[in-house]
Amino acid sequence: MPDALLQHPFMSQTALAECHADSMVQAMLAFELALAEVQEARGAVPQGASAEMRRCLESHTFDSAAIAAGIASGGNAAIPFVKQARAALPDALKRYWHMGATSQDVIDSALMLLLKPRLAALDALLLRCRTAAITLMQAHEQTVMVGRTLMQQALPMTFGVKVAHWAIGLEQARRRLATVELPVQFGGAVGVHSGLDELGLDFMDALAARLGLSAPVLPWHTDRQPIHALGTALDAAAGAAEKLALDIALLTQTEVGEVAEPSAPGMGESSSMPHKRNPVRCAMIRGAARQVHGHATVLLNATAQPLERGLGEWHAEWSPLVDSALLLEGALEQAAVLLEGLEVNPEAMRRNLAATGGGIMAEPVSRLLAPVLGQDAAKRISAEAAETARLQGIPYTEALEAHDEVKAEVNGKLDVEALRQATDPALYLGSSLAQVRRAMAWLDE
Amino acid sequence: MPDALLQHPFMSQTALAECHADSMVQAMLAFELALAEVQEARGAVPQGASAEMRRCLESHTFDSAAIAAGIASGGNAAIPFVKQARAALPDALKRYWHMGATSQDVIDSALMLLLKPRLAALDALLLRCRTAAITLMQAHEQTVMVGRTLMQQALPMTFGVKVAHWAIGLEQARRRLATVELPVQFGGAVGVHSGLDELGLDFMDALAARLGLSAPVLPWHTDRQPIHALGTALDAAAGAAEKLALDIALLTQTEVGEVAEPSAPGMGESSSMPHKRNPVRCAMIRGAARQVHGHATVLLNATAQPLERGLGEWHAEWSPLVDSALLLEGALEQAAVLLEGLEVNPEAMRRNLAATGGGIMAEPVSRLLAPVLGQDAAKRISAEAAETARLQGIPYTEALEAHDEVKAEVNGKLDVEALRQATDPALYLGSSLAQVRRAMAWLDE
Amino acid sequence: MPDALLQHPFMSQTALAECHADSMVQAMLAFELALAEVQEARGAVPQGASAEMRRCLESHTFDSAAIAAGIASGGNAAIPFVKQARAALPDALKRYWHMGATSQDVIDSALMLLLKPRLAALDALLLRCRTAAITLMQAHEQTVMVGRTLMQQALPMTFGVKVAHWAIGLEQARRRLATVELPVQFGGAVGVHSGLDELGLDFMDALAARLGLSAPVLPWHTDRQPIHALGTALDAAAGAAEKLALDIALLTQTEVGEVAEPSAPGMGESSSMPHKRNPVRCAMIRGAARQVHGHATVLLNATAQPLERGLGEWHAEWSPLVDSALLLEGALEQAAVLLEGLEVNPEAMRRNLAATGGGIMAEPVSRLLAPVLGQDAAKRISAEAAETARLQGIPYTEALEAHDEVKAEVNGKLDVEALRQATDPALYLGSSLAQVRRAMAWLDE
Amino acid sequence: MPDALLQHPFMSQTALAECHADSMVQAMLAFELALAEVQEARGAVPQGASAEMRRCLESHTFDSAAIAAGIASGGNAAIPFVKQARAALPDALKRYWHMGATSQDVIDSALMLLLKPRLAALDALLLRCRTAAITLMQAHEQTVMVGRTLMQQALPMTFGVKVAHWAIGLEQARRRLATVELPVQFGGAVGVHSGLDELGLDFMDALAARLGLSAPVLPWHTDRQPIHALGTALDAAAGAAEKLALDIALLTQTEVGEVAEPSAPGMGESSSMPHKRNPVRCAMIRGAARQVHGHATVLLNATAQPLERGLGEWHAEWSPLVDSALLLEGALEQAAVLLEGLEVNPEAMRRNLAATGGGIMAEPVSRLLAPVLGQDAAKRISAEAAETARLQGIPYTEALEAHDEVKAEVNGKLDVEALRQATDPALYLGSSLAQVRRAMAWLDE
Repeated sequence: MPDALLQHPFMSQTALAECHADSMVQAMLAFELALAEVQEARGAVPQGASAEMRRCLESHTFDSAAIAAGIASGGNAAIPFVKQARAALPDALKRYWHMGATSQDVIDSALMLLLKPRLAALDALLLRCRTAAITLMQAHEQTVMVGRTLMQQALPMTFGVKVAHWAIGLEQARRRLATVELPVQFGGAVGVHSGLDELGLDFMDALAARLGLSAPVLPWHTDRQPIHALGTALDAAAGAAEKLALDIALLTQTEVGEVAEPSAPGMGESSSMPHKRNPVRCAMIRGAARQVHGHATVLLNATAQPLERGLGEWHAEWSPLVDSALLLEGALEQAAVLLEGLEVNPEAMRRNLAATGGGIMAEPVSRLLAPVLGQDAAKRISAEAAETARLQGIPYTEALEAHDEVKAEVNGKLDVEALRQATDPALYLGSSLAQVRRAMAWLDE
Repeated sequence: MPDALLQHPFMSQTALAECHADSMVQAMLAFELALAEVQEARGAVPQGASAEMRRCLESHTFDSAAIAAGIASGGNAAIPFVKQARAALPDALKRYWHMGATSQDVIDSALMLLLKPRLAALDALLLRCRTAAITLMQAHEQTVMVGRTLMQQALPMTFGVKVAHWAIGLEQARRRLATVELPVQFGGAVGVHSGLDELGLDFMDALAARLGLSAPVLPWHTDRQPIHALGTALDAAAGAAEKLALDIALLTQTEVGEVAEPSAPGMGESSSMPHKRNPVRCAMIRGAARQVHGHATVLLNATAQPLERGLGEWHAEWSPLVDSALLLEGALEQAAVLLEGLEVNPEAMRRNLAATGGGIMAEPVSRLLAPVLGQDAAKRISAEAAETARLQGIPYTEALEAHDEVKAEVNGKLDVEALRQATDPALYLGSSLAQVRRAMAWLDE
Repeated sequence: MPDALLQHPFMSQTALAECHADSMVQAMLAFELALAEVQEARGAVPQGASAEMRRCLESHTFDSAAIAAGIASGGNAAIPFVKQARAALPDALKRYWHMGATSQDVIDSALMLLLKPRLAALDALLLRCRTAAITLMQAHEQTVMVGRTLMQQALPMTFGVKVAHWAIGLEQARRRLATVELPVQFGGAVGVHSGLDELGLDFMDALAARLGLSAPVLPWHTDRQPIHALGTALDAAAGAAEKLALDIALLTQTEVGEVAEPSAPGMGESSSMPHKRNPVRCAMIRGAARQVHGHATVLLNATAQPLERGLGEWHAEWSPLVDSALLLEGALEQAAVLLEGLEVNPEAMRRNLAATGGGIMAEPVSRLLAPVLGQDAAKRISAEAAETARLQGIPYTEALEAHDEVKAEVNGKLDVEALRQATDPALYLGSSLAQVRRAMAWLDE
Repeated sequence: MPDALLQHPFMSQTALAECHADSMVQAMLAFELALAEVQEARGAVPQGASAEMRRCLESHTFDSAAIAAGIASGGNAAIPFVKQARAALPDALKRYWHMGATSQDVIDSALMLLLKPRLAALDALLLRCRTAAITLMQAHEQTVMVGRTLMQQALPMTFGVKVAHWAIGLEQARRRLATVELPVQFGGAVGVHSGLDELGLDFMDALAARLGLSAPVLPWHTDRQPIHALGTALDAAAGAAEKLALDIALLTQTEVGEVAEPSAPGMGESSSMPHKRNPVRCAMIRGAARQVHGHATVLLNATAQPLERGLGEWHAEWSPLVDSALLLEGALEQAAVLLEGLEVNPEAMRRNLAATGGGIMAEPVSRLLAPVLGQDAAKRISAEAAETARLQGIPYTEALEAHDEVKAEVNGKLDVEALRQATDPALYLGSSLAQVRRAMAWLDE
């Protein structure tokens, strides 16, 4: 697979190192051994059998290439794995191996085991992002910049409050992910513990406890709500990171230049254009997030699975689910680095605030003028003065004070000082500071 | 739009009757009036102003066609609505209208108001499904049928437990939907309550309380986690209904015939083929659910929105979000009718259990034989006997007892009665009954 | 449906006016009448019957609300339509009505008839875009601007060549759409013309000819390749328009200001911020295109349909297919207006070219220096001089000539004139002009 | 990556063996060497330079792990590859390496080179499917089976015509794929051949010819129509294979049993249930196709890319595009095996035709009776007789002849022989045979 060059770069390298074909084999093994232990504890398997299995198999070198090759005939990795493991067991134990389980029990549980450390890693990354965001929010709670809607300059805000909005998004995603359950799967051939009778549910619960997974109400072979919840929660976090990356990419534009990705040797360099510093981390996050959305689409369309086993729907889930987690982990690593090292340029923010010659302050000015001159005149005058300021290159206040209709009212119904204040972006920040404070309290909850 | 013939049939007709262009106008009006009331309560608007606005506008007939036509120039319905409403107000009140709000505040809040009764209706439908499912589960907790994996007959189970699995899926989706918050939107032009200062957050909270929406931590103009959570929760419920419809459609196949959709005059009739009873409700549910998945895909890809306002990303959310709710409501109405009136045919279930000549019992038989004859021989013999039974049309037990290797052990290590029991599907139901009981307890929580 | 305020604004109003529930009814009628005519021509229906049907039904007022209400029991609009129409026919003709046809024949063919004028309209709009683009390309084949990669200024190009790239995208989409076939559907209950024998294929071909649709090889009830081809071709065109809108939106940013949407009274105005001119058309295009992508996702996932009739898969196609066309038509109307009236600001382009103090010319400079000073030194020096130029606010050439290592070689191995040329963006346009010429030739093909 | 166990099994193993990280490196190398050759041929590079580069680099062992590790800082594999290769060149040649090219030129062209043999393999597989389908169509052009709509038995058809419908779908997809162009990418930093002037287009065309790729009109860095066309054509073929797999899976159901997947040792066996023969190939095809749809969704949403280089949109394409091809190749290998070895059971088809006691023939009977007894009576009687036949277990003809209203007309206006014919499915095959013939002619075109 050329994915080593095409897909893995978007993934967490730590995660890739921990999560490979052998990890899947080990996860399947962990499931089967736990099953034997649980069954032994209830007397369904002879005393000592599970320890003997563990002894045999933990030291056994599984041939994961052979397992991969064996998938073709049965359609999943559990079948060749179970065979390979059984072959390594003493004859007396063979019949207690994989007892009462079906392939889907093995695969689904193994996937959950594989994902458990990934969810922990994602949570840690999101907490790292939160900490970094809080630092940025505090550092910039007074840093004035222009807010932009439909990519046009609109009104002033602070950089701190922008970061707060990012942080809220990431933290919502973190809390959502934290509530997602990773249930064990154990139901046997048709999900009703055939041959185990009521012990089946008991085994299922005990397995969950032993493996550190949650216990589902019932086996969920074709009730894929847990996968839907997990896949969409991963996607939500990808969306939160993507939002951050989109904003940073826009703010790093040459003409805007309000922030820059943290510099690092060679990072973002263009081979041919030395002046460029590309927002490569943003590109990587956005590249990853888009792939996560595609994977989520597969999961949504596979929620309904027929009768007691998916016929392709289930099979289609595996790679999208795991890849989503790895891509997200990659994206969040980048997001953490961005938040921790973002270069913020308050001077560029100030420069950009002046780009419309004060025009962005036309709304507060118009609000100020309205009670005196009427709403329509107020709007017209504030816009005319902004146009004058831009054309003549003079400050907006000056253009305003020079406007005939304003002049007539100044020192009567209009106060010069109020005019000056209404044209100063730094005095028109609304709830920016209060929002930062409120966000910090909520993030701390 | 030909959608009246192409899309609306998949939607809830009740919902369609309650949720139309005028409802959207009324929802926008409700937002603006509540805003004025909140502002008046804090003294930001003169005493009596909001009541006067309500008096003027509640009796005003809005021209929603004109509003629709006015969308083109500003890109959303709030702009022409606000203009039309302001024109209907006395001059003295005009400046207090839509004060401190931006279009997105109006649209997002109005959408939440529009969706609130829909979520209530969805919850009621899911509860209706739950009640109907519980009745079915109880009625059929002993009804034996064959479980099918990869669409092949596998092992016995009960119809009750199948319904329990459906019910768990639907209830998981209901609980997920029930936790989804519908937050008010109020942030002003760039989301920082420009001109309102710290009062902004206060207004936002008060607005939420007054409108019966939840109060967000901060304005969420471009933090679309709430939309993601809502859209994917709707999709999860669609998936749960789709699962049910898929199963029912498969079980109604002419050759299977284990269930039938509730009959109703003209329902599912084929104009040309009188013998057919089409699973039309299943088709409608599946048709709706697939469209919901498509809409969810739009929402996933719109989670990241630039800076302080989406440039198309936001606009792309409106119709997919509302349509998802209406499609889901349609699907759940059908699901409720299916669960309440499903015709279950236990006789067909029994007939189908016999279709493999007992072959489906080869696994329990093999388990029984294994300790005596060894695992490999047990598998081989159980399969050979099933083949004999099928070819000679004799009961499986008979074929088994006639098998040389079995005969040799009968009344020695093998007990005829055990053999008979192992070949009786009704005695091999695993945890089916226990699962039904456990599901009922959980559904009741 | 609140879609009048939420979805229709993204659609072509012309298209909406032509394409509604009654159009669908008329299209179904056209199909059935053509079928009767074809059958009469082959003697399968008595002479004069089809004319009598036409007489009865063309003047008949169909009750499309009743048709909509009737969909619930059969799952599609053809069933109640066929009944309603049959009721309006004299008894003697009733048995010749809808003869040999199935609901899917009616619906699929009617959809194709509905879409035929839409495809024509789309082609016309794409041609209109092409013409406008050619005009822009010619007008700006020498207009220098900076090219931007990863949203960073990179190297010079012309605005003409940028438009050429847009035009190529749109024209590729147009040519793809133009090859898409709209096949008639006619196969009867299970797609094999039951009861009509070999005449069936003959009727199918004659129907296609009579209705101006293409004749498929075979009925395609569950071979949805034609829908896939159509849906993805619509999506491709949406993508081409979306590209244009994305670029324009980026170029209209306050800090960039290189183009502006055509001004029109009230267009893009912000109710509260008079200085803003929002790229509303771009937002509308992007909003539409994203919804088209969602619809296409539904179609992709519905390509495989079971046996002889989709069970929900087919039903899920209708609205996404028609809505895609209407959304695309809306998007292309906006695109045409944008291309026809785009305000281009060459001065802003020049200003932005200077934003890096010449840094964007570091690459050509480095190429010039490399043969003399070695590749590494050349890169370093060109970057250092750019930095000096930016910090001291002096022209790049000057900073370069003042650089020690350069000075040492000037008038030796380095030519001052060559240095000046290498720092002039207008002399470093590569194949921009040639590309415009080549594009024009290809567009004209 | 656990993809070796989770995703690769769905892919063509041949393709995986040919298409890996080193193949990508070799494809990048092929691009760069061809570029040098083209440039040398036009005198832009010294005579002999390209041969020397080839000599150096073809024997060079690239460290693809180092390349992978190097991606992080620049965001794509071309940057570290170009560096690694340059380091291996003699100093004198370094400056001619990668001359005038940008990373995207390398990556896009390399992807096209990687996909070229895959498209050839896909074409070959689709031809193999076509041949196998034709054989099946011929063998079964008279094999009567029941057609099923909404999964209910409807009317008779032949198995041959069903295969013809599959074959048409696959062949449409093949022809669509065959028209897709794989264009070379060559445009330099901003797509206008900076520094190469008009030679740029000439190089681009020559490169295309030398690499066996098609020459685009212009560089297509952010005009992604070619990717859209390719990705959706792959998806269409996946849909055609998925249709076949869905039908086969439904027909293999235990209760239907009309076809079976080709048997092979161990194939489709259940580890625990010896009687089962699972349609594993169908599951694998459906699993692959669903993942392809997800990948296509990513591509659709990435069609619009900003300005002169995607910021994540481009990056998101790589893996979905290549994975789609490999998944499709896997799916088509399975489809070919299915078509070549499908076990068809005409006896089961006959048995199932009788399942409704003749009810499926009620429509032809009703057509026969209508002219004599009126349409309403005809429908009623044909249904009543079917019910009688089913309840009494007698042949439909008999029940019909015994019906009072029919008896009254027999030998008068009704002919017994006609009645018998109307109840014989094998005489009611419509255009089945003609369709097979027509399909064969078209497939042969």
